[in-house]
Amino acid sequence: MIAKALEWVGGVDGFLELVDQRLLPGEFSTLQCRDAAQLYEAIRTLAVRGAPAIGVCAAYGLVLGMRNLKSGDGIEQALQTLSESREYLASSRPTAVNLFWALDRVRGKAEEFVGEKADAGIAALCEFILAEAHAICREDVEMCLRIGLNGERFVKQGSCILTHCNAGALATAGQGTALSPMFEAHKKERKFKVYADETRPLLQGARLTAWELQQAGIDATVICDNMAGWLMKQGKIDAVITGADRIAANGDTANKIGTYSLSILAREHNIPFYIAAPSSTFDMSIKSGAEIPIEQRPGDEVRSFAGMQTAPDGVDVYNPAFDVTDARDITAIITERGVIENPNIGNVAEHLRASPA
Amino acid sequence: MIAKALEWVGGVDGFLELVDQRLLPGEFSTLQCRDAAQLYEAIRTLAVRGAPAIGVCAAYGLVLGMRNLKSGDGIEQALQTLSESREYLASSRPTAVNLFWALDRVRGKAEEFVGEKADAGIAALCEFILAEAHAICREDVEMCLRIGLNGERFVKQGSCILTHCNAGALATAGQGTALSPMFEAHKKERKFKVYADETRPLLQGARLTAWELQQAGIDATVICDNMAGWLMKQGKIDAVITGADRIAANGDTANKIGTYSLSILAREHNIPFYIAAPSSTFDMSIKSGAEIPIEQRPGDEVRSFAGMQTAPDGVDVYNPAFDVTDARDITAIITERGVIENPNIGNVAEHLRASPA
Repeated sequence: MIAKALEWVGGVDGFLELVDQRLLPGEFSTLQCRDAAQLYEAIRTLAVRGAPAIGVCAAYGLVLGMRNLKSGDGIEQALQTLSESREYLASSRPTAVNLFWALDRVRGKAEEFVGEKADAGIAALCEFILAEAHAICREDVEMCLRIGLNGERFVKQGSCILTHCNAGALATAGQGTALSPMFEAHKKERKFKVYADETRPLLQGARLTAWELQQAGIDATVICDNMAGWLMKQGKIDAVITGADRIAANGDTANKIGTYSLSILAREHNIPFYIAAPSSTFDMSIKSGAEIPIEQRPGDEVRSFAGMQTAPDGVDVYNPAFDVTDARDITAIITERGVIENPNIGNVAEHLRASPA
Repeated sequence: MIAKALEWVGGVDGFLELVDQRLLPGEFSTLQCRDAAQLYEAIRTLAVRGAPAIGVCAAYGLVLGMRNLKSGDGIEQALQTLSESREYLASSRPTAVNLFWALDRVRGKAEEFVGEKADAGIAALCEFILAEAHAICREDVEMCLRIGLNGERFVKQGSCILTHCNAGALATAGQGTALSPMFEAHKKERKFKVYADETRPLLQGARLTAWELQQAGIDATVICDNMAGWLMKQGKIDAVITGADRIAANGDTANKIGTYSLSILAREHNIPFYIAAPSSTFDMSIKSGAEIPIEQRPGDEVRSFAGMQTAPDGVDVYNPAFDVTDARDITAIITERGVIENPNIGNVAEHLRASPA
């Protein structure tokens, strides 16, 4: 069964249920967020992570935020509360673009709604916000599915696929991005095997991707990141599929650190290398990968693990969150709109101009 | 100061003092082995590791083994005890070639000694065994130093060196193999920086190499294994130097898993790639890397860390201890005898035939 990262349970008085990803893979447990503060903490502490999943959660968070209203508050106060909830939730993960996008979309539409229906009461506004959050969620589910349908042909019968980090169902409201083609191939009863890079330092591949694949009944094997090249050398990898954090106008792709090395190793061994990501991942304001800023993460992520020191006190650590893969080393980019083979500045622009498939 | 993995303290009634590498880098503590059982446990539980270091320890272990003699035992009983100690210590790490080699050398010479000096007493035999263990230790120290002297020119002023795993002082009786050229360059007051791959799954790079470099006052930075390619892409690596576990007659080199990927990434970025290892690492019975057997290690090394589960229960793990780097991707092999540039079946054989430098 494909995992589900999040689900709104009930109507406007319901709650947001999340898989607590901090406890995986040792323990499967869900969290119920019944107010905005609970959701804020869930996002901040990575109980839920993955840009699309966070965006959807934040939209539902605005429903929860309306519970701060007191009886007797009017519609002006409701819009004020919505705005405050937007600011509050936006500060849970300050660099998450999807988070801001989802919050602003719901707030903007809610303001329009109130503007157009001057006599709408608070109850109607809350229903409207919930409906908009549901719409964002449904669109995310649909986007994931379409990436899977567009990419499943690259997951061939009898093949071995390598993936890095977690771009699966746990990172979205649907069935993920990089893993979605694998889930679709599995639905067609194709047999294949997936190697999941454990993905240091935070081990999202070992903890989350391997768990998701196992839950779905897909043959999964965990490797350390430094083993991928040796598997390729032995002819054991037929394709690499990863997600993306940001894609420049020319197709250069920022993704979890280690993706760049995989792209070089894949080229060396004549293995196709695919990126699977929603078309919203393209940042057309960025011409090439050289302009993509790379977040540097705290050294302590590398210096210790599970409370145990793994490197000497005070030693320097280099810990970039992402690297950039050259477009020329990407066989194709799979989006919900279709597939961009040999991505470059021309066909990327064309892909984004074309109406969605 | 360059770390010292082991030291015999005192005369024939002395003890073997070891850095307890299980506790590094969190705690620096030494172990004193006063009988063969203590040493056996130290080797078995990886308090001491690294093929050359284990060989030297085992030789001293035969001195400790003689303490099992009872008063009144004769020379025959002493040789019997020596033989039993040899079997016992050999079983501490069953695949360690240096361990068997050192044990057999000491036992063989001790048997010759008794054969030639029929009137030699037990005290003289024990002194002989200690002297032979000291000789093995001195030779190891000398071997390390010569690798450093032969390789230091590759550690240039202002350069950045990448290394993998631990082939340092902690793995030998001397100043290590791969790290020895760095220690020599440091003695010449050359300024350079070393990136140490943390080296999953057992983190010998983060735990041991980074600690050793820090102790020696060398500028060290720890990275996750998946970050090396991205550093190279940014022009931040000028040379890669690693150790070796076994080298075939044609120069193909088995070393810690991840070394192969580094060799491909180094070639891609036009970075020289060096192997530093004693000439005893060559196994001329093996024509090429394809014949080198690769040890598969337990999956639990990857599935959990510091008692915390990092991958789902029962998930498959692929965990090879080593991989094989093609000779054509090795710029040079540095041994105690000299340097083999562009190693191949011809110049490897010539190097080993030539008398040591």
